[in-house]
Amino acid sequence: MGNALADKVLAGHVPSAARVIRRLEDGDAEGRDALTALYPHSGKAQIIGVTGPPGAGKSTLVDRLITAFRKRDKRVGVIAIDPTSPFSGGAILGDRVRMQSHAADSGVFIRSMATRGQLGGLARAADDATVVLDAMGFDLILIETVGVGQDEVDVIKLAHTTVVVCLPGTGDEVQAIKAGVMEAADLFVLNKADLPGADEAESHLATLLHLEMNDREWERRLVRTVAEKGEGVAELCDAVVAHDVYLRTSDAFTSRSAARARHSLFERLRELALERAIDGIERSEELQHVLGAVTRRETDPYVGAARLWQALKN
Amino acid sequence: MGNALADKVLAGHVPSAARVIRRLEDGDAEGRDALTALYPHSGKAQIIGVTGPPGAGKSTLVDRLITAFRKRDKRVGVIAIDPTSPFSGGAILGDRVRMQSHAADSGVFIRSMATRGQLGGLARAADDATVVLDAMGFDLILIETVGVGQDEVDVIKLAHTTVVVCLPGTGDEVQAIKAGVMEAADLFVLNKADLPGADEAESHLATLLHLEMNDREWERRLVRTVAEKGEGVAELCDAVVAHDVYLRTSDAFTSRSAARARHSLFERLRELALERAIDGIERSEELQHVLGAVTRRETDPYVGAARLWQALKN
Repeated sequence: MGNALADKVLAGHVPSAARVIRRLEDGDAEGRDALTALYPHSGKAQIIGVTGPPGAGKSTLVDRLITAFRKRDKRVGVIAIDPTSPFSGGAILGDRVRMQSHAADSGVFIRSMATRGQLGGLARAADDATVVLDAMGFDLILIETVGVGQDEVDVIKLAHTTVVVCLPGTGDEVQAIKAGVMEAADLFVLNKADLPGADEAESHLATLLHLEMNDREWERRLVRTVAEKGEGVAELCDAVVAHDVYLRTSDAFTSRSAARARHSLFERLRELALERAIDGIERSEELQHVLGAVTRRETDPYVGAARLWQALKN
Repeated sequence: MGNALADKVLAGHVPSAARVIRRLEDGDAEGRDALTALYPHSGKAQIIGVTGPPGAGKSTLVDRLITAFRKRDKRVGVIAIDPTSPFSGGAILGDRVRMQSHAADSGVFIRSMATRGQLGGLARAADDATVVLDAMGFDLILIETVGVGQDEVDVIKLAHTTVVVCLPGTGDEVQAIKAGVMEAADLFVLNKADLPGADEAESHLATLLHLEMNDREWERRLVRTVAEKGEGVAELCDAVVAHDVYLRTSDAFTSRSAARARHSLFERLRELALERAIDGIERSEELQHVLGAVTRRETDPYVGAARLWQALKN
């Protein structure tokens, strides 16, 4: 079945791609229909998750990676996950503006997505956007996260290649990286490697890499960069390419893509189940009784939820 | 119905409270049974969410608040939400150790909870823990968050009083506070107010407070503190108490408690719905067909999820 909007995306029409992504963010049927038409054309791009603590310089690094990959004739899509804040607006907007230096280049597509405080909603939107860019023929799709909270964990599940960006300096609460994220990393970047403490940080990271039993097929790498000056960026590109070669010459690309498909499917199912359950509950008479009982502290929320679920099923 | 473990908690036995909280974190039946018995005894404490960007000094501030409230003969419970990380272990552990200066004081209960990368799981565990401490007779329960990601939004839904801790310095990505969090704040703290830029930050915050149409019953306050030196902590205590007085002399305590109960109930229902839906799916024959089709890119995840949901219902 044809879909005019999807056809425009496949023909490389950037405004149409932006429209589909926006419609999907809104949970709109037009977006979903286009996605259905685009989905069979996706599955070729290397999807790269870039995460790490705030202040690690991820945006600058991504900006440099775009330039470097463009020199290698790769088309690059970027999905940047932004926190929305009256405080940080300036700084982050600044980063985005900087990235817009690629705006005139049709081989680059950059889309920022704001966290809206919706559980899981942002990860879904990012997932959908990668499908659109992938179908459109971008070779690499970088998903850049804020680097904290759930977003970080979600992005790993979407990526073929996970890049964790660290910076020198210890004892800093900002360095908080979740254990699961460290384990999932394929590449480590020590950015701002010209700062004091870089050598210590490198050996600390190297120790962490070593501590792990290395029965991995892919030997994880650590790259030192100074993104602001462009130092180490070529090495990082090489490492990203090496990981892509590993993925496609082993069965890893296929197995990660399958895991990604499973994850996407289950996430959509979860949303659907929630939506339908909550819909059903909102219309249920039992809700007012249970809600009253929980509010009066006669019934605890677990027992109340079980009662509502039972009512839903009958 | 009696519950021996709950009875011990109600009698003030700290190890039993710790056990119930741990069992609830694990999703264990023993924990839930105790919670059912404790729930009718809860609903009296002032629950205070303390949030703000990493590095704002929340842990130190909470530590000082404990001391100050103990001097006012209040019993204080603290639930600290921690990121788990091989990097930050040192710093955060240090904070916790510092807070253990209250360890010998039976009027203080501190419990750290690690983020485990489970969607919503941590918020549920924190919610359950407040019920336990509340039933046990703690007057104030402080929930301290990492201050980023979803945790921040969740904690507001659990609190009667939301305290947002800021620090001087602009253009810093770390300053990222979600818009929804700013709006929900009852009290703002400008911590580290002896740093350069404090006056600018204060006037920036004051402008933000002013921009809003002030049709609120509660006039939101801004308190300057230097937690490390204990400066401004008494004023902050006064502001927390003033908010409690406002809550209990208006219908706000009742309405926030009702909103909290509703939120807790719906969260438990969501979890139950997900659990049952995923359980049902795992046993469904349709799953393998749909999963195969999504992996081969013949079916997109939305259409696949709808097919699975339909299969579940039949």
